Amino acid sequence: MKAKLNLGIIGAGRIGKVHIESITTGFTDVRIKAVADPYLNDETRQWALDRGVEACYKDVDKIIGDDEIDAVLICSSTDTHSRYTMEAARAGKHIFCEKPLDHDLGRIEEALKVVKECGVKFQIGFNRRFDHNFRSLHQAVVDGKVGDVHMVRISSRDPEPPSLDYVKVSGGLFLDMMIHDFDMVRFLSGSEVEEVFAAGAVLVDPAIGKAGDIDTAIVTMKLANGALAVIDNSRKAVYGYDQRAEVFGSGGAASVGNDSPSTLSVSGSNGVVGEKPHFFFLERYIDAYRNEIGEFIKAVVEDKPTPLGPEDALMPIRIALAAKRSLETGKPEKVR
Amino acid sequence: MKAKLNLGIIGAGRIGKVHIESITTGFTDVRIKAVADPYLNDETRQWALDRGVEACYKDVDKIIGDDEIDAVLICSSTDTHSRYTMEAARAGKHIFCEKPLDHDLGRIEEALKVVKECGVKFQIGFNRRFDHNFRSLHQAVVDGKVGDVHMVRISSRDPEPPSLDYVKVSGGLFLDMMIHDFDMVRFLSGSEVEEVFAAGAVLVDPAIGKAGDIDTAIVTMKLANGALAVIDNSRKAVYGYDQRAEVFGSGGAASVGNDSPSTLSVSGSNGVVGEKPHFFFLERYIDAYRNEIGEFIKAVVEDKPTPLGPEDALMPIRIALAAKRSLETGKPEKVR
Amino acid sequence: MKAKLNLGIIGAGRIGKVHIESITTGFTDVRIKAVADPYLNDETRQWALDRGVEACYKDVDKIIGDDEIDAVLICSSTDTHSRYTMEAARAGKHIFCEKPLDHDLGRIEEALKVVKECGVKFQIGFNRRFDHNFRSLHQAVVDGKVGDVHMVRISSRDPEPPSLDYVKVSGGLFLDMMIHDFDMVRFLSGSEVEEVFAAGAVLVDPAIGKAGDIDTAIVTMKLANGALAVIDNSRKAVYGYDQRAEVFGSGGAASVGNDSPSTLSVSGSNGVVGEKPHFFFLERYIDAYRNEIGEFIKAVVEDKPTPLGPEDALMPIRIALAAKRSLETGKPEKVR
Amino acid sequence: MKAKLNLGIIGAGRIGKVHIESITTGFTDVRIKAVADPYLNDETRQWALDRGVEACYKDVDKIIGDDEIDAVLICSSTDTHSRYTMEAARAGKHIFCEKPLDHDLGRIEEALKVVKECGVKFQIGFNRRFDHNFRSLHQAVVDGKVGDVHMVRISSRDPEPPSLDYVKVSGGLFLDMMIHDFDMVRFLSGSEVEEVFAAGAVLVDPAIGKAGDIDTAIVTMKLANGALAVIDNSRKAVYGYDQRAEVFGSGGAASVGNDSPSTLSVSGSNGVVGEKPHFFFLERYIDAYRNEIGEFIKAVVEDKPTPLGPEDALMPIRIALAAKRSLETGKPEKVR
Repeated sequence: MKAKLNLGIIGAGRIGKVHIESITTGFTDVRIKAVADPYLNDETRQWALDRGVEACYKDVDKIIGDDEIDAVLICSSTDTHSRYTMEAARAGKHIFCEKPLDHDLGRIEEALKVVKECGVKFQIGFNRRFDHNFRSLHQAVVDGKVGDVHMVRISSRDPEPPSLDYVKVSGGLFLDMMIHDFDMVRFLSGSEVEEVFAAGAVLVDPAIGKAGDIDTAIVTMKLANGALAVIDNSRKAVYGYDQRAEVFGSGGAASVGNDSPSTLSVSGSNGVVGEKPHFFFLERYIDAYRNEIGEFIKAVVEDKPTPLGPEDALMPIRIALAAKRSLETGKPEKVR
Repeated sequence: MKAKLNLGIIGAGRIGKVHIESITTGFTDVRIKAVADPYLNDETRQWALDRGVEACYKDVDKIIGDDEIDAVLICSSTDTHSRYTMEAARAGKHIFCEKPLDHDLGRIEEALKVVKECGVKFQIGFNRRFDHNFRSLHQAVVDGKVGDVHMVRISSRDPEPPSLDYVKVSGGLFLDMMIHDFDMVRFLSGSEVEEVFAAGAVLVDPAIGKAGDIDTAIVTMKLANGALAVIDNSRKAVYGYDQRAEVFGSGGAASVGNDSPSTLSVSGSNGVVGEKPHFFFLERYIDAYRNEIGEFIKAVVEDKPTPLGPEDALMPIRIALAAKRSLETGKPEKVR
Repeated sequence: MKAKLNLGIIGAGRIGKVHIESITTGFTDVRIKAVADPYLNDETRQWALDRGVEACYKDVDKIIGDDEIDAVLICSSTDTHSRYTMEAARAGKHIFCEKPLDHDLGRIEEALKVVKECGVKFQIGFNRRFDHNFRSLHQAVVDGKVGDVHMVRISSRDPEPPSLDYVKVSGGLFLDMMIHDFDMVRFLSGSEVEEVFAAGAVLVDPAIGKAGDIDTAIVTMKLANGALAVIDNSRKAVYGYDQRAEVFGSGGAASVGNDSPSTLSVSGSNGVVGEKPHFFFLERYIDAYRNEIGEFIKAVVEDKPTPLGPEDALMPIRIALAAKRSLETGKPEKVR
Repeated sequence: MKAKLNLGIIGAGRIGKVHIESITTGFTDVRIKAVADPYLNDETRQWALDRGVEACYKDVDKIIGDDEIDAVLICSSTDTHSRYTMEAARAGKHIFCEKPLDHDLGRIEEALKVVKECGVKFQIGFNRRFDHNFRSLHQAVVDGKVGDVHMVRISSRDPEPPSLDYVKVSGGLFLDMMIHDFDMVRFLSGSEVEEVFAAGAVLVDPAIGKAGDIDTAIVTMKLANGALAVIDNSRKAVYGYDQRAEVFGSGGAASVGNDSPSTLSVSGSNGVVGEKPHFFFLERYIDAYRNEIGEFIKAVVEDKPTPLGPEDALMPIRIALAAKRSLETGKPEKVR
């Protein structure tokens, strides 16, 4: 494979490393020319070099300014996503940006405007669309196996809450956690969301409430195509990462469940015991992360549309903001 | 078993027959002294006599006025439930009444007042509490297997809508169908419901909409104990009667699924195919009907409280009426 | 139902009571005219009378000699089955006989000869053929869902061994326990068994070995239609009664699993825990017992062939005896 | 990672490529210095170079003679395994050899003698031991979750038979296909096999019979620890690659099932349809192949014993040869 794609990676935290690992072990025709992270330490630098990354910087501008770099992966903290997106777009680089693009609708729209003007490709990182289970469920719906969609039900529960420090800057459960599920409702239903009613509670940890957030929520949605949807979230499922969905329609119901480390089942005097779901998102979605980057690379190399474009960066935020308003007003709110 | 309990059955329609069959084949110490139904035909009369029922009347008063009859099962049409309840109570008979007691809160309260004054036992017919699956789920919650309850999720879908004639007099989806699930939320959570938000749609059959009802709904609830609950209903699941529930809490999640005619699984070139759920409520809940009557008989014979008392006749109606209001106002409504 | 069938029941032990309970609670058109058991005690007598049995004797001849009795159910100890079969046949009564008819091929053939000469109906009690799961599996095979049958696999494990006293008179694991599975191989494959190889061991309890029996066995069979079959048995599965089967063929595989008290599944920090199978045969096969008697009654009343005739009483014994020989010789043995 | 391990790969057919792909994408500290295959074509050469393989030869001696190469992976045709093993051992290279080492006991013993004399590490390629499911099952047994092992049951079925040309040189079903399962019985039971009885048939394709082989088999084993085991094999399961196992013992039963492309389940009017198992061994065991090479690399780098040593290359062959004899004699045969 002579013609390599040259990538720059902005942010070498947990998710940046996931992408570096995916790319260096899973793709033979892609080069990571540089990684930049203002907080880069020696350990991470060595880790990256060992994986074949060619250069490591603390200065993100060195990536933005590198003409050899065709595309960037923005994996830095959320507050920098829209800025780097605009800078990279203006430098003519294609962009893969971790979700969310921003918590502020104005900044999102500004960034997407720049992306459009600069004519670069843009993909937002809703990784779950590339999970084998959700992809199969989506395909079943597209193939008409449930007929017309009447209801979408999603359960999405984390094994443990994030740190309180993170909770405070996270934007809240709707923007930080349920945003994945809002995107999934759109993906599975093939429809936009029009109205949202949010019921939320602090049941896992009172400290989350004191930090101004909730840890448990059930959100009902009315979709543009007439269907209904519901999502439940909890910050703490003691049995692991619980990620299930069902689409019900005129022709039947299709559902996907959790993945587990193995199919082991032990029948003993206390019952028939199966394995818990995978612990958390890195275990469950590691292949999904690889797949989404693969699709981004393919879109760039083959000059085709990315699977998740600007609209997909924007709409889930709008739904999440409506859910936030609904929680405040105690009433259903229009997505706007 | 010398001391027999003498029962009178009011109403010999579908559900009355279910109880007659249960009692005549499942209990050796109970006598059905009489069945009364204004619409009694010869076929039903013969059917009942063949099963050992001693007398069949068209006149319900003959049961109310029979001093030998200890208890009545009211299985007539909904609009007669509250009247027969009061008459039977005043005649000193213990009462098992099919759900709902009435659609009107005033009449329900009046009937329950009479029941209380007369000191007779009263049981309302929420049969699902006696289903082996829901009973196991309830027991798991009571045994602390999910810790504190955070969320209750119920899916309840019929295989096909009732006739339009029935839809028109049914009181609507919330009072006719979801009322079972409202009771189930109370049963599984051990808590009353405080607020309800109803999202409804006509997706199965436009004629149901023209008849003033909906056929698809997702209802969110806030419970007195702080937990959240959600129920989804559809009038038409092409794969059969879909009756599932999950309780999620601080210690884990417990769920029950559907029953099927067998555990048969066929692996072929088109996939791994299991059986559909049982077709409808008679197939799924036939044992539950028998169990509920058994518990009623036991409560009467042993002079103990019935498992589902006046409060259980009243509260689900209140929730259903709040759901109706919510559908009209488009806002959450308090249960009152 | 005017025309009642009059039954006599010989033997009022555990299985006799199962049939009495089934018939008195499940059939409205059948009368149990008498029960006879040499060891009848007052408690059992009262129990039977309470259920509507008309007479109870210690003398079996009173049933054989009662001209009003149309058919008998032989539920006495195995050593009396062939004798009562012949006596009942000569008295012109139709016969349902618990398995096995005898452990001795000569006596079986003699009894079946008498049955044939007397022209009475005869059904042997392989109850599992009437279980909803095995029936569905059989139907799937008959419907061609697995194509040509290539292999039959059966796992059949008891929750606990019988008493040593019983082990000593049981005829051994093959005649007492695996005989059901030999019949099931015939039922599922639609073929007779030609050759048997038995591997057996004493792994559950050395006392069973001292009593001359084994408690664990895997038996391989070659069938007349060219297919292969295998059965495994254990006298002790700590998780309950394990009764599963699979038929594999040119078109796929069909299998049935265990029934459980409920579909409850609890996800907690220790795994996802489902219910154990039903404890033992009375829990698992209670409906099968009712069904087999229903089919027998129907065959008598409608004068049709019974579903399990003389051949079915004979062939499983032949297979079991071949398995016994194989265990002794350490070589495969022909069924003869 | 400064200190790289230098590997040579002998044989660049299907399985050689699997290992090349695994190593070049999954390990960052290992170098494939050379690949040698007498039948190497340009396409494969380019494919390998693209993946970072440094050199490609047609002459295997160039690998054997390269002092920089620490270890070889022997992935050539079976008839060359023992020869290359001896040559590599004498050249002081550690050896990973695909199964089987040979079909001839004498040649196996000779090769293993040389390995021992030369003091190199040796690992035989029974990849299934590294599958997540079988590994979990093995661990459950080691952890005592089934108590003492009483029975091991394995079902192992291919989706389609190999070509007749392959069948003719394969050594037959026992040496080619069931050999994996013989190893699995040893792995799961922790015991050697003492006696084997093989029942075989030609049910899939008469041409396989004409080629001197069988396509369907059930093999029973008596183990040194007193337990029993049974394996069933078919060359054609229309629903995909069927790979399941169960270990039953004094404390319960543990089992593992198949993996599928997703957890999708579709409930429609025809039943509840789940996905078929993965199509064949490359889909099912791709991670297992990676894991086994990872363990080999670790054993070499850390100078520890390999997980599957000479004994594991030898014993399954002995069992397979006993099964072959049993099929010929029609009697059980000792493993010797």
